Amino acid sequence: MSNKEQSIKAKTFHHLHQQSSTFVLPNAWDVISAKMFEECGFKAIGTTSAGIAASLGYLDGQSIPLNKMVETIENIAKSVNVPVSADIEAGYGQTVEEVLETVKAVAAAGAIGINLEDGTGDPNRPLFEISSQKEKIAAIKELSESRNMPLFINARTDLYWLNVGDSSMRFREALKRAKAYQDAGADCIFIPGLTDRKIMKKIREEISCPINLLVDPEMPSLSELSEIGIERLSCGSVPFRATLTYLRTISEEIVNRQTFHHMTNGDVLSYKRLTEFIQ
Amino acid sequence: MSNKEQSIKAKTFHHLHQQSSTFVLPNAWDVISAKMFEECGFKAIGTTSAGIAASLGYLDGQSIPLNKMVETIENIAKSVNVPVSADIEAGYGQTVEEVLETVKAVAAAGAIGINLEDGTGDPNRPLFEISSQKEKIAAIKELSESRNMPLFINARTDLYWLNVGDSSMRFREALKRAKAYQDAGADCIFIPGLTDRKIMKKIREEISCPINLLVDPEMPSLSELSEIGIERLSCGSVPFRATLTYLRTISEEIVNRQTFHHMTNGDVLSYKRLTEFIQ
Repeated sequence: MSNKEQSIKAKTFHHLHQQSSTFVLPNAWDVISAKMFEECGFKAIGTTSAGIAASLGYLDGQSIPLNKMVETIENIAKSVNVPVSADIEAGYGQTVEEVLETVKAVAAAGAIGINLEDGTGDPNRPLFEISSQKEKIAAIKELSESRNMPLFINARTDLYWLNVGDSSMRFREALKRAKAYQDAGADCIFIPGLTDRKIMKKIREEISCPINLLVDPEMPSLSELSEIGIERLSCGSVPFRATLTYLRTISEEIVNRQTFHHMTNGDVLSYKRLTEFIQ
Repeated sequence: MSNKEQSIKAKTFHHLHQQSSTFVLPNAWDVISAKMFEECGFKAIGTTSAGIAASLGYLDGQSIPLNKMVETIENIAKSVNVPVSADIEAGYGQTVEEVLETVKAVAAAGAIGINLEDGTGDPNRPLFEISSQKEKIAAIKELSESRNMPLFINARTDLYWLNVGDSSMRFREALKRAKAYQDAGADCIFIPGLTDRKIMKKIREEISCPINLLVDPEMPSLSELSEIGIERLSCGSVPFRATLTYLRTISEEIVNRQTFHHMTNGDVLSYKRLTEFIQ
């Protein structure tokens, strides 16, 4: 992908966060899932670290080697025409320099945005210090500004995702971090696990940059989210887990009932159609 | 995997073809699909070349680099305890030597069996000569016998799959090839595309080694196949295509109806459950 093309895609991705209604970002784990999302009409695609890791046999949480994660991100970014934002977890490193190396690698792989989370993976110290996270975000922002490619920085705070503290502390700390990350240069604040309308509204009032939430059975409808003023709803690993669950349904039917209806009904993409799909 | 372990798995796989009823072989395209098949109770797993290729963005028909195909086969074989048989298409080579190199690579990757097809991928000359195919099978058999690991050789003939010739010619040529491949040392004859009971019965009468068919909406039931004396029914790319189709359903629901029911219903594997699944 040329620099110019990547830059145009980055700008398109920024614009998607400036609409009056919430846009949905589906998260791919391999080339075919990305191509399916694109064919169905999504305007941009994210990656899911959990889905990429699991499809290659690794646990989520940076246990997959970075080069394998980057290779998959590159395969995905090359295979579609829409912008691709990369889930880089906590940046695959402890220091600002290490995180910057990761960001450079995924940008070179064709990604036009990144998610950077503040969860450490350590239950005894679940979140990075705000100051440390701000430094990383500021350094990524500086990198982005030094290039002709406005990388979209989605700063994720994991208070709700990891269920840290009691509900009052969780809200205060999430808001504090959202403000801090915005001040450090984040283009969007991602709060997975947050589904409470009142809290969304309070955070919306305090934050001027776009807000990103994660699909959840408890999530308000897209029209409600639009009214609240949420710019983006990411799918995370949900489509990956849902298709895996469908594979379980197919498998259990074969093993327990000795029949094949779930995988041979008329709707299933033919081999010929799959071939056309890849071309 | 130790040689001993691989040898035990190979023998287990041979035994699965010596039962009174047809066994179903599901075909995986990545680690998580293989792990799901194993968890659901399948006794062995195949790979699907079409699924592996598509998930990495390649067309079926040996357009994926061999090392990428072997890497995926290795990831799959390492991730499960059941035997894994590898779909190596036409062997990724024209000569006996090239095909043998491919077989050695997938055996080193942990596979205990291979599928070798006689389709060339060239519409003007759709099938390899019988003599050429026999040489390859005989060479693989010799390799297998020279090692302490009885590689399962599934020789596939593509007359029905590629719809070659008229029905009378197709039957005669398929039978001729099945006999020739059996004589050359094949452990099983695979005839994808064959769904006609009468023809299955005729071929069954003429062939003593196991017969393998491919899941198809027109396929007789497993109990009928068992009565006819078919040892194995492979799933090919059907589970892959069916889960991809489910992803289309999920995506179309989001794009067209702005809802998420297909991916957030109560049955969907939770993130926590996915983590346990990988561990």
